[in-house]
Amino acid sequence: MRPFLEGWVGNPAARHSLGEEARESLRAARAKVGRLVGGRPDGVVFVSGATEANNLAVKGVALRGSGRHVVTSAVEHPSLLAPCRDLVKAGFEITTVPVDHDGRVSPDEVRRALRRDTCLVALGAANGEAGTVQPWRAIAAVTREAGVPLHLDGVGVLGRIPIAVEAEGIDLLTVGANDLCGPPGVGALWIRPGLRLAPQLLGAGQEDGLRSGTENLAGAVGLGVAAEFAFREGPAEAGRIEGLRDRLIDGLGSRCSALRLVGPRRHRLPQHAGFIVSGVKGESLVLALDLAGISAASGTTCGALTGEPSPALRAMGLSEREAQGALAFTLGRWTTADEVDVVLADLPPIVERLRAASPFA
Amino acid sequence: MRPFLEGWVGNPAARHSLGEEARESLRAARAKVGRLVGGRPDGVVFVSGATEANNLAVKGVALRGSGRHVVTSAVEHPSLLAPCRDLVKAGFEITTVPVDHDGRVSPDEVRRALRRDTCLVALGAANGEAGTVQPWRAIAAVTREAGVPLHLDGVGVLGRIPIAVEAEGIDLLTVGANDLCGPPGVGALWIRPGLRLAPQLLGAGQEDGLRSGTENLAGAVGLGVAAEFAFREGPAEAGRIEGLRDRLIDGLGSRCSALRLVGPRRHRLPQHAGFIVSGVKGESLVLALDLAGISAASGTTCGALTGEPSPALRAMGLSEREAQGALAFTLGRWTTADEVDVVLADLPPIVERLRAASPFA
Repeated sequence: MRPFLEGWVGNPAARHSLGEEARESLRAARAKVGRLVGGRPDGVVFVSGATEANNLAVKGVALRGSGRHVVTSAVEHPSLLAPCRDLVKAGFEITTVPVDHDGRVSPDEVRRALRRDTCLVALGAANGEAGTVQPWRAIAAVTREAGVPLHLDGVGVLGRIPIAVEAEGIDLLTVGANDLCGPPGVGALWIRPGLRLAPQLLGAGQEDGLRSGTENLAGAVGLGVAAEFAFREGPAEAGRIEGLRDRLIDGLGSRCSALRLVGPRRHRLPQHAGFIVSGVKGESLVLALDLAGISAASGTTCGALTGEPSPALRAMGLSEREAQGALAFTLGRWTTADEVDVVLADLPPIVERLRAASPFA
Repeated sequence: MRPFLEGWVGNPAARHSLGEEARESLRAARAKVGRLVGGRPDGVVFVSGATEANNLAVKGVALRGSGRHVVTSAVEHPSLLAPCRDLVKAGFEITTVPVDHDGRVSPDEVRRALRRDTCLVALGAANGEAGTVQPWRAIAAVTREAGVPLHLDGVGVLGRIPIAVEAEGIDLLTVGANDLCGPPGVGALWIRPGLRLAPQLLGAGQEDGLRSGTENLAGAVGLGVAAEFAFREGPAEAGRIEGLRDRLIDGLGSRCSALRLVGPRRHRLPQHAGFIVSGVKGESLVLALDLAGISAASGTTCGALTGEPSPALRAMGLSEREAQGALAFTLGRWTTADEVDVVLADLPPIVERLRAASPFA
């Protein structure tokens, strides 16, 4: 990204040759993102991040189509759920399919939810709180048969688990750069060429009219490089991280009886370890772990803004008190075995100390 | 920005101490932007750029207010005009006030356009094609008296001409980082604290619920630094650039009779020199100048995407053929007197050559 932030870089919309150079760089980044998602590069629309991509997918498809019914699930990220709910004001009906105790959406439930006026099925490819990977290939078979567009939020999955929009019949896919060790503030929505959307940011018509605003060229280039790394090194890296993650889950299981794994053991994001800690608030644990130099989350990081117990965990059948005991670790490109061992050593005494002080334990 | 792109940086929404550090950096950037616009820092909402800020201002205020009437002008940037037009679908009426031959909006015309159900007046503080600076202080006096919120797009003006939202009664102001030599992909909307808007990007509730999405921290920091430079060095730098700009306008005026200044001589953006070249298409001039190493624009850079003759120049009374002969130069922080002299030497023979080959000259 550095030359694009430091150098003499044109506006991709300009007619002069600096503009042409900028367009070339944008094209190259588009090709890299297309390779990662397994789709044609001309389907890639650069946006400001995963939240905008989810907003554009949900509102863009719904407000352009003829149907007035959208299907989603009970465990979705707010950036997918909130635009669905906002459509109700515009006369849409939303069906929220339930999940099982692992947070999994059943393809059969999706089929049952479909109506003649369904214009979109919008789901996360995985759930970031429970680590659940959704059976999107089976869901895509259902939506394809019904002729209803399927939007997936690919955050968490991309770069860890192979996903291919063209081969698997996915119509829209959200990409977040920060989820791929790229820069925050940029993302992409892959849209099946031919599918028409109502643009949500209006102006001078950049990104083929689908997303106005002077392009974040450095960001798009950064996303392209991150996508290239994820495409080339993702599979091997996911195996390494999954091994560390299992060491964490197994080690804590044998050392700390107050912890219970939340979400599935199989079909789980390789980078994700999530637990319910009985008798302790997850928020207190996050703060105590932070003092030990360990960064964890309780519920969604984004949900930390509101402090409400996670609706996704509640939808999986956990009680409000159980959901408040949520604790999640995510592993990444720089996570080492030594760091996992630090958590294995430090977490159990911290849990015991907090439980001893808790009225609920 | 570099440490925020290279270092160990937290998510500003996270509870742990890396998150707290990130929040601190965001607060500092907010304070810098507040200083530049002359408004309280808590009025600053970070967004992905000027286009998003204009969309949020127009739709956010209109869709939250009770009135159903918006006032704008005939010379606005597409990112302001397009969301106004989109409101028509939602039952709004738009009044487009005319401009004089210099592209200036009259405060009296704004007063005449106001109705009892007017919920917003939305204008550019300056016009990027003609360089016209609007009389926003007089316009703000009108809107303040009427109790109608005033939104200004500050692009072009900020960092060149002092503007102060609190002192001057401006209710919303768009800031674009790339307009201040900051990074593309980030901007801000200053919103008068207490004024309520309907958020347009929905999700986890960042930016006080007004703009969801994981914050572009490096971008916000970059915008903050750019705002600090603009605040400290803007006035002196504007004087330097205005001198160079006048050298360009005067020099071309005496050397090239086919060129006519467009827009006002006084109340003009200090960085802006815009002309109508009779008998030549501006687009052809841009390409010929590019071969000589000179980057110019014809109409808006953004408008280059559609190739349509500029509606703003047409609204100033220019014929379609005249508008097609538009040629504009913008000067910046790195523009030197030598570069101006290159344009003075190279442009006149290029114009003569193109005119000799043109059927319209």
